[in-house]
This record gives sequence, C-alpha cells and structure tokens, in this order.
Amino acid sequence: MPSHPHVAIVGASGAVGQEMLVCLEERQFPLSQLTLLASARSAGQRVTFRGEEITIQELTEDSFTDIDIALFSAGGGISEKFGPIAAAAGAVVIDNSSAFRMDPEVPLVVPEINPEAAKNHPRNIIANPNCSTIITLMGLAPLHRHFGLTGIIASTYQAVSGSGAQGIIELDQQIGAITRGETIEKNVYPHQIAHNVIPHVDVFQETGYTKEEQKMLYEGRKILGLPELKVTCTCVRVPVMRSHSISATAIFEKAPSVAAARQAFENAPGIKLVDDPEKALYPVPLDTTGKDDCLIGRIREDQVLPNALTVWIVGDQVRKGAALNAVQIAEIL
Amino acid sequence: MPSHPHVAIVGASGAVGQEMLVCLEERQFPLSQLTLLASARSAGQRVTFRGEEITIQELTEDSFTDIDIALFSAGGGISEKFGPIAAAAGAVVIDNSSAFRMDPEVPLVVPEINPEAAKNHPRNIIANPNCSTIITLMGLAPLHRHFGLTGIIASTYQAVSGSGAQGIIELDQQIGAITRGETIEKNVYPHQIAHNVIPHVDVFQETGYTKEEQKMLYEGRKILGLPELKVTCTCVRVPVMRSHSISATAIFEKAPSVAAARQAFENAPGIKLVDDPEKALYPVPLDTTGKDDCLIGRIREDQVLPNALTVWIVGDQVRKGAALNAVQIAEIL
Repeated sequence: MPSHPHVAIVGASGAVGQEMLVCLEERQFPLSQLTLLASARSAGQRVTFRGEEITIQELTEDSFTDIDIALFSAGGGISEKFGPIAAAAGAVVIDNSSAFRMDPEVPLVVPEINPEAAKNHPRNIIANPNCSTIITLMGLAPLHRHFGLTGIIASTYQAVSGSGAQGIIELDQQIGAITRGETIEKNVYPHQIAHNVIPHVDVFQETGYTKEEQKMLYEGRKILGLPELKVTCTCVRVPVMRSHSISATAIFEKAPSVAAARQAFENAPGIKLVDDPEKALYPVPLDTTGKDDCLIGRIREDQVLPNALTVWIVGDQVRKGAALNAVQIAEIL
Repeated sequence: MPSHPHVAIVGASGAVGQEMLVCLEERQFPLSQLTLLASARSAGQRVTFRGEEITIQELTEDSFTDIDIALFSAGGGISEKFGPIAAAAGAVVIDNSSAFRMDPEVPLVVPEINPEAAKNHPRNIIANPNCSTIITLMGLAPLHRHFGLTGIIASTYQAVSGSGAQGIIELDQQIGAITRGETIEKNVYPHQIAHNVIPHVDVFQETGYTKEEQKMLYEGRKILGLPELKVTCTCVRVPVMRSHSISATAIFEKAPSVAAARQAFENAPGIKLVDDPEKALYPVPLDTTGKDDCLIGRIREDQVLPNALTVWIVGDQVRKGAALNAVQIAEIL
C-alpha cells in the first residue's frame, strides 16, 4: 500500500458516503487522489473536499484502475457486483454492506477491537460490521477484556439514518405533514415512524428474528472471536435522526463489579463513560450526533442474572456505525 | 356499595382524569352522580359528560361527603393528603399514584390478573399500578399461567403522556420549534425529547436503577403474588405521544414453546396477539392509541437463556396504563 493511496468512495452521494468525505477530511487522511463514484443518477454532482471541487463519476466496471483503497457504501447489490471487480483491479475494498461479512476469507473489523484482523485479507476485501453491532461492541468489548463476555440480551433504539438519507427524509416529511395536518405518506417504513416506534429493522427470518437482530449474534462472534457467544436482540426503529442507542444486559464468565466496569473505560479508545445519573448525565443520541466517540452509561448490576451488568450504549450510526469505522480500517492499511 | 354509586374524579383536568371521563362514558358505567375535583387553578372549568355539562370544583377536605368511589389521579402528594380523608369519609379510593402501592393493607390490582385482590381493602384504598408495569404484565400474565414466570429483563419505550399533559405539550412544542428553526425549550425533561430518547424515567436510586424501573420489580411481585420474581428494567422515554412499548425477555419454570405461548392469548381478556411479521404485523404504539386492548407480538425463543421467550408488548399508557384500569377496578366494586 502506498503511503498516500488513491482512494475511491462508491456511493459518494449517500448519507454514509457523504460522512466518509467528512471523516477523510477531519482526520487528514493521507491520500494522493480521491475518486467519487455513484450511480448514473448522481454522476455529475460536485462535492467540495479540502477546498477543491470533485465531480462524482458514474460507477462502471472500469472505475477501479489505479485505485488503492475503495470504500463501498452503496448497498449489498452494488458491493456484490463491483466489490470483486475492484479487488481484482488491485484495490483493497472496505465494504459497508452485509454482502461479505460472514465470508471466512473476509475479515470483519472494528479497529478498536480487532485491528490485527484487517491485515489478512486474501480476497482483497475487508468488511465493515453492521452499525448497531459496532456500537454495542464498542461498549461491551472493554468489559469483555476484563470479565469474559458469554451472552448479550439487547434492545435497540435505532435512528432513521440507518435506512440512509431516505429514512431521514421520511421522518422529516412525516413530522411536517403532522404539523400541517396533512396526510402522512409512507415509503421507507411499513408504518408511520413519526410519533411511533417500529420493532422491525431488516427482513424477518423463520425463527422470528430479523436479519438485523441476528447480525449482532453472528458478527459479534466473528469480531470478538467468541464462537460460543449467545445473543438475543430486539431491533427497534425510533424517530431519532442519526444516533443509535442500545439497552444491553451483558453476561460474563467472571463476576463483574460496577466499579471495575467503570474503570474499564478509563483508557478505552473510541468509547467514553458518561454515568452520573444524579446530575442527569447518561448518554443520549443527540449528544453523539456528529461525534467520533461512542458513549456508555447507566452501568449497574443486573437484578435477574448472576455475573451480569445492564448498560446503555449510544453512538452516531452514520459516523462510528459506518463511515468512521471504514476510514479507520483504511488507516490501518 | 350502591348499584349506582356517586363517583368523584380527583385531578379531573389532567390527561388521565380526562381519559377517566371517556372510559366512564364509553363503558356506560352505572353511576348516580359524577363530581369532578381539581386544584383551584382548574376549578370552574366545564366538562361535558353524557351530554351534560359538569363544572370542576376545587378539591378541599370537605369534597368527599356522600362520595362512594373516588378516582384519584392528581399526583402522589394530593393522594397522600386527600386519599385518607376521602377514605375516612366513606369513599373507596382508587388511587393512580405510587403513594399507597406497596402498603400491605392496600391491594394493587390489574383486573384481568388479580381481580379478587380488589375485594379486600381494609384502608378503603385500592392502588392502580404503574403504567409500564400494567402493560408489561398484561402481556406476561397469560404466559405466567402456563409456564410459571420467574424473571423479566425489560427495556421500555415510554410515551411522553407518562409525564401528563405537560409531557405531550413539551414534545409538541419542541417539534414545532425544530420545524421553525427556533430555540428548543426544556421544562419537563432534562434533555430534549424531540428527535431523542432519554434513559431516565422517575428519579434515580443508589443502586443505579430509577424508581420507575424498580416499580416493575416490586409491583410485579405484589400483583402476580410472586415474592421471588426477579426483574431488571431499563426505562426509556421516547418521542411518542401516548402508548408505551416494552421489549421483554421472560424467563419461566417450564420450557415454553412459541406455539403454546401464542395459544395463551386466544381467550385472554384485554390483550391481543398481533404476530405475523411476514406481513409487517406486530404491535406499534400508534395502533393502540385510544384503544382498550394491549397488544403482544414478536414472540420468539430467547437465544441466550433456557426456558425463556422474548416478546414485544404495547398498550395505551393513558388508557389501560392508567384511566381504564382504575375504572375497571371501580367496576369490580
């Protein structure tokens, strides 16, 4: 990998693609050139990066000549088709979709948790985990290092940004329609999301769990290297713009204490303890919006299970849940 | 108790008081007279009930002469002061506050679960349980009858109506301010509730749990008659107007099957199964607003704990979570 690689963003006009540009700029990522790719519909749009205008180009099979790193965030179908093409052309693909996450030859990486995994990528593809999985594990990995994680029972409060820019637009339009007394239109979600919560993220499977809920199980096992990890998750969409929250009961091998758990976050990268409830200090989604760090708070002994803590974790879904994590993987390379 | 009692509502101008009027009217409650009581600030307001106007009177120590049933929903302080006065004057008090719930001489009643408890009220006071506890137990009690409940791990999604009319006004005003690009004002909640979720309902205690979270433990034990029941709860305020949702993992003595669990709701009063996820059918808060029935869905085997099911329960907090439950208790009398 050259010290100043040529980077491409596939899906540059989407919510995550736009945030990738912000992360590359803020982190002063050392790149020689930036190529922005998207569908024909978005091609021709101009984007400012480091004070210069870049025109978004149409994604084609010939887009990846001379690209060193290709950040994909344009949906699973685009990744499945163009990811291998980019990899064959010599780029290392960092893919934000679920297309390759469970491929044993594709590492699944959260840089604060398993950075070493990023170095071995025989298919030239590295996968970025699911957003709610990243944020949950950012909170639980420091505890796992101390107490040995064996199980997670989680309920999520997921922002509409998880459905891309269209989710944000739908919530915004529905709120506007309610304010004006107009009819609510539904395009992205099967139910109204304004003034509502919907226990349905991604598609349902035969077990009654959604794919999103099972990502925390299967991706969690792979990232933490814990093939026996047990996870039950209930994923719920809430009318929040772009940060996900997770209420989690974490079960450990060793008996955890609240005091030791708090200490585990003193020097943990990318996650901060906000836990002074008497002063109404605990993580809330608005406080993480546009921020790199995830937040954890409300750490307390679980009252049902032995060796368990119940916690509250929040992180910006677009940033650490997607764009930032991908850029951090590129930094490892 | 006379067949057509004289009923008083204390807190008649509040969100729950207003809903009590709706419930009495819809259910054709057999009353001889209705007296509406509130603070001096609300006294003089006129309310229509069964086509006739009733003027709200100021609550005083002399308000309870000839009252047979007094429905209290004006906060714990008013209940503590005026509840015993009403009871001494001969009324049976049905109290919606937390003031008397844990008093061993005060029954705590959900009519579909423990109606017989309402008949023994030595202090002339019967307590209405906490709203999120009622809705959670409406979902879990039918399962308890079949499998024997031993533990609950719950995360709530609680509407702003739980903070009374002021909570609804605050969410409405904040959404309006965002729409108009104005500054957000906060009076009811310590953080902005519009476009946010807040893991803080009621006051924090030394254990790190809030009083609201512990209500599900202590009230659940009393209502179900299960002194050994274990409960961990995380209570979260969400920007929903008036229905609460609960994501719950319920642990049982006997191994439950999903099929038998579904059957448990076939003839259960006050709770309906809505569980056809392939058709996007599961409970959402907007579908229960203004409805008597609670809804349960997303019933599935828990993947972490043996003998456990994970479910999703929704109910109207103002109605079954408060006003309707109180009126149902009055019907038992």
